[in-house]
Amino acid sequence: MCSAVAGDSRHPEREAVSALADDFVTELREWLAIPSIGADPAHHADVHRSATWLAATLRRDGWPRVEVWDAGPALPAVFACWPSDDPEAPTVLVYGHHDVQPVDPVERWHHPPFDPYVQGEELFGRGASDDKGQVAMHLLAVKAHLAATGRTTPNVTIKLFVEGEEESGSPHIRELLDTHRDDLACDLVVFTDTPLYERDAPTICTGQRGVIGGEIVFTGGSSDVHSGRAGGGVPNPATALARLVAALHDDEGRVQLPGFYDDVVPPSDLERQDWAALPFDEAAWLAHNAGGAQATAGEAGWSTLERVWVRPTAEINGLHSGYTGPGLKTIVPASATAKISFRLVPDQRPEVVLEQLREFVGKHTPPGVHAEVHVRGDGAPPYAADVTHPANLALHEAYEVAFEQPVRFSRTGGSGPAALLHAWLGVPVVYLGATLPDDRIHAPNERVVVPLLLKGAEAAAVLWRILPERLS
Amino acid sequence: MCSAVAGDSRHPEREAVSALADDFVTELREWLAIPSIGADPAHHADVHRSATWLAATLRRDGWPRVEVWDAGPALPAVFACWPSDDPEAPTVLVYGHHDVQPVDPVERWHHPPFDPYVQGEELFGRGASDDKGQVAMHLLAVKAHLAATGRTTPNVTIKLFVEGEEESGSPHIRELLDTHRDDLACDLVVFTDTPLYERDAPTICTGQRGVIGGEIVFTGGSSDVHSGRAGGGVPNPATALARLVAALHDDEGRVQLPGFYDDVVPPSDLERQDWAALPFDEAAWLAHNAGGAQATAGEAGWSTLERVWVRPTAEINGLHSGYTGPGLKTIVPASATAKISFRLVPDQRPEVVLEQLREFVGKHTPPGVHAEVHVRGDGAPPYAADVTHPANLALHEAYEVAFEQPVRFSRTGGSGPAALLHAWLGVPVVYLGATLPDDRIHAPNERVVVPLLLKGAEAAAVLWRILPERLS
Repeated sequence: MCSAVAGDSRHPEREAVSALADDFVTELREWLAIPSIGADPAHHADVHRSATWLAATLRRDGWPRVEVWDAGPALPAVFACWPSDDPEAPTVLVYGHHDVQPVDPVERWHHPPFDPYVQGEELFGRGASDDKGQVAMHLLAVKAHLAATGRTTPNVTIKLFVEGEEESGSPHIRELLDTHRDDLACDLVVFTDTPLYERDAPTICTGQRGVIGGEIVFTGGSSDVHSGRAGGGVPNPATALARLVAALHDDEGRVQLPGFYDDVVPPSDLERQDWAALPFDEAAWLAHNAGGAQATAGEAGWSTLERVWVRPTAEINGLHSGYTGPGLKTIVPASATAKISFRLVPDQRPEVVLEQLREFVGKHTPPGVHAEVHVRGDGAPPYAADVTHPANLALHEAYEVAFEQPVRFSRTGGSGPAALLHAWLGVPVVYLGATLPDDRIHAPNERVVVPLLLKGAEAAAVLWRILPERLS
Repeated sequence: MCSAVAGDSRHPEREAVSALADDFVTELREWLAIPSIGADPAHHADVHRSATWLAATLRRDGWPRVEVWDAGPALPAVFACWPSDDPEAPTVLVYGHHDVQPVDPVERWHHPPFDPYVQGEELFGRGASDDKGQVAMHLLAVKAHLAATGRTTPNVTIKLFVEGEEESGSPHIRELLDTHRDDLACDLVVFTDTPLYERDAPTICTGQRGVIGGEIVFTGGSSDVHSGRAGGGVPNPATALARLVAALHDDEGRVQLPGFYDDVVPPSDLERQDWAALPFDEAAWLAHNAGGAQATAGEAGWSTLERVWVRPTAEINGLHSGYTGPGLKTIVPASATAKISFRLVPDQRPEVVLEQLREFVGKHTPPGVHAEVHVRGDGAPPYAADVTHPANLALHEAYEVAFEQPVRFSRTGGSGPAALLHAWLGVPVVYLGATLPDDRIHAPNERVVVPLLLKGAEAAAVLWRILPERLS
C-alpha cells in the first residue's frame, strides 16, 4: 500500500521514493510514538526526545551538519544543513515543526494517539499530518533526490529548521531567528505545514492568514450580586460585553473595528481564477472543515473560500461570566470575559489591529464597567507569496510531475510563522505540503494519507533537481 | 448587649423580650451550628437535624402541636400550631425557612460559618439573618406575647410553617401546600424572610418581585472548529448569542421581549410617597447592595429603588462558550450558553414571560444555529400586598411601638413563595422582618443585628395582641 507506481524510468524521483517507501513508514511510526506535546509541561521531556530522535535520524541519513538548538527558554528545535557541492547553488531553508497538539478528548480516539498504526492508505497518530509526517517527507525527498540524480550532495544547499514550539504559537522564534541568523541564511524558504485543497484537487498554498488575539474583561462590582437585591439597578458586565460583541460586526458580517479593512490587499486575479476552478461542495466542506456546522455564513459579497482564505475575521473563541454550573443562580455577575482572535490578511498588521481593538473596546465600555484588554503573545502577521515568482513556478512544475494532474494555487485560512521567516530572513517563502484538510489535525484520530506524502516527497525531490536552473 | 430597654411597663412586650434575650441568643447559636445547606446533598442529614432541633425547641416552648413534614421528596419542613383559646380569634400562618445557603467561598469567612459567635451587637454565622434568626425571632415573640399578656394561649391562633427548601427555590412547596391544605388554613400569612430598609429607617415590606429563569443554548457545529480552517465562513454561536443578548434591551434599558410590560401594574401613590421619603445614598447603596458596583444603571425614567423594587428585569446570570482556560485557543465554538433570569413584578406571570422569551429567541436565532431554551423550575410569581389592608395597618402600628420611629412601607427586589402562599391559601400576605440589607445573606460573614431581632420580636408580640381587634 505504501508504494507509488514503481520502476518508472521517466520519473526517477518516483522510482527512488517508491524504493524507500516502506522504510519511510516504519521510521515515521517510530517518531510518531514520541508524545511531543509542547503545550503540556509534563511532555516537555518528550519534546526533547523527539528532537534527539530527529537529529539521530538525520545523521544516519548522512546530513553533514545536524544540531539540536535547546539553549534558552524555547523547546528544542532541530537544525541541519546539507551543502551542495556546487558553490553557486541556491540555498533553501525547509521549515517544519516536531511538536504536536494535545490529544484531548483522548477517549474519542479509536486507537491510542501515540501508538501509530496503518489502515489501508492511512497512517493514524497524533502528528501524522501536523507536522511530523511532512517533515519526514522532506527527509525522504532528500534521499530520493540523491538516489534519483546519482549525486552525493544535493543540487541545492538544503537547510532544515524544525521548530519545537509551533503549536504554542512559536513564542521564541524571534530569538531563534536572531541567534541563528547566519545559520538560517538562505535564498528561499520552503514552508511545510499546509495541506492540499483536496485529494483530487492538488494545490500549492500561496498564503496564510495572520492571527492576533487576547481577551476582553469587563468588571462591574468586586463580587457577584444577588439579582433580587440589585438586579435592574446596576450594570450587568455580561450584558455589556454581549453588546460589545454584537457591535463587532454589522448585519452584513463586516468587522466594525475602526480602520480594520484599510490595509487589506485583494488577492491577484490569477489566484481568483484558480479558486473559481476548484471544486466546492458546501455540505462536504462543512463536514470536513467546519465541525459539522449546519450552514455557511460570513461577510456579504464573498464566497466561502474567499471568506476563510483572504478575508479578515473577528472571532469570539470563548465566553465566560458568572454562574455556569447546573441549574440557575440569580446573580448579576461581577465580571465577564471574551476570548477574541482576529485572522488577518495582507497587509494587516497584528499591532495595528490591536490598537483598533483597544479603541473599539474603549468606545463600547458603558459607565460603571471597567474594561481591560489582555493580549496573548505577538500574534503572527499574514503572508502571501508572489505566485509569479520563479520559485513558485518551479514548485508548480514539480507538483504537476508528481501528481500528474492540473495543479492550482490555493490559500489556507490558518496562520504560521511564514511571514516572520520572510521578514527576518528577507527572502521569499513558498509552501510545499501534501496533507489534506480532513486529516483531523488538532482533533482526535489525526491521520495522514501515505501515498500523498510520497507524492509530496517526489515533488520536493523534483524541485531540488530543477530549482537551480529555474532560479538562474 | 442583648437587652432592649428593660423594665418599661408601658411596653410589656419589650420587657418580656428583654428578659428572654440572653436565652434567645444562646438558643439561636445552637441552631446556627447545624449546617442545614439544602443545596448540598452531603448536608441533607443536617437539614433533617435542623428540623428536629426546631421541633424539639417548639415542644419545649409549649407549642401543643408540632410536626416534622418529611414525607415525599421535599427536605423536611416543620409545622406547629398554638391555638388561641378564643374560638373567634383569627388564625395567622407564620412562614419562614430553616435551610441555609452554601458557604463558598469559605476562605473568605473571618470565622467558621457554623461556629456562630457574637461580636458587639452582631451575631455571625450562616443563617443568622436568612432565615433562622427571623424564625427564632417568632419563637421568642410568642413567648413574650404570653408573658406580656399573662395568657396561656396566644391571642390569635398561630401556625408556624418553616420550609426546608427555600434556598433551592421551594421546588416542592406546591405539593406541601396541597397535602396540608387543612393544616395550613388561615386568615393571614405573616411572611418572615425580608429585611428592613436600613437600621435607621425601619420599614415594612409590601412586596417581592417574582423570578423565572433558565438557559439559552445556541449550537452551531457538533464540535469546536479551528478558526484558521473555517473562521469567517461559518456562524459563530458565541457571537450569535451575544447579538441576541444585546437585543434583549434597548438603549434605554427597556426589555425587548414582545409584550413584556403589558401586565405590569404601577405601585400605589402611598408607597411611592414613602419611598421618596426614604434616605438614599448611592455610594452606600452600591457598597451594601451591589457588591461594590461602580455606578447605578438601568431602565430610563425610574429611580434606583424603583428599578430594583417595582420594575421587571432581564439579567444574564452566566455565559459560557468555547475555550475559557488560560491563554488563547483560536476556535469557533460549537455552542454557547447564556443563563438568564427575569425578575417580575405584579401582574406579570412567569409562564407568560417564558413564552415571550421563546418567541424572542426564535426571532433572534440566525440561520445555521440551533437554539434551545431550558427552563429551570416553575419560577415564583411576584406579589404585592395591599398597604391599606387592616393587617398591614396593624403591623405598621406594632412596628412603630417597637421601633419608636416613623415606619414606612418598602419593597424588596428578591423573590420568594409569598405569591404562592397567597394563591394557594387564598388569604392576604404581610411581611414581618427585622434584618438588614447589608447582613451579607448568601455571602461570607453573614450576620444579624441582635437588637433588631429583639425589636422584631416585640413588634410580632404586639401584633398578636392587637390583631384580633384590628381585623374585626
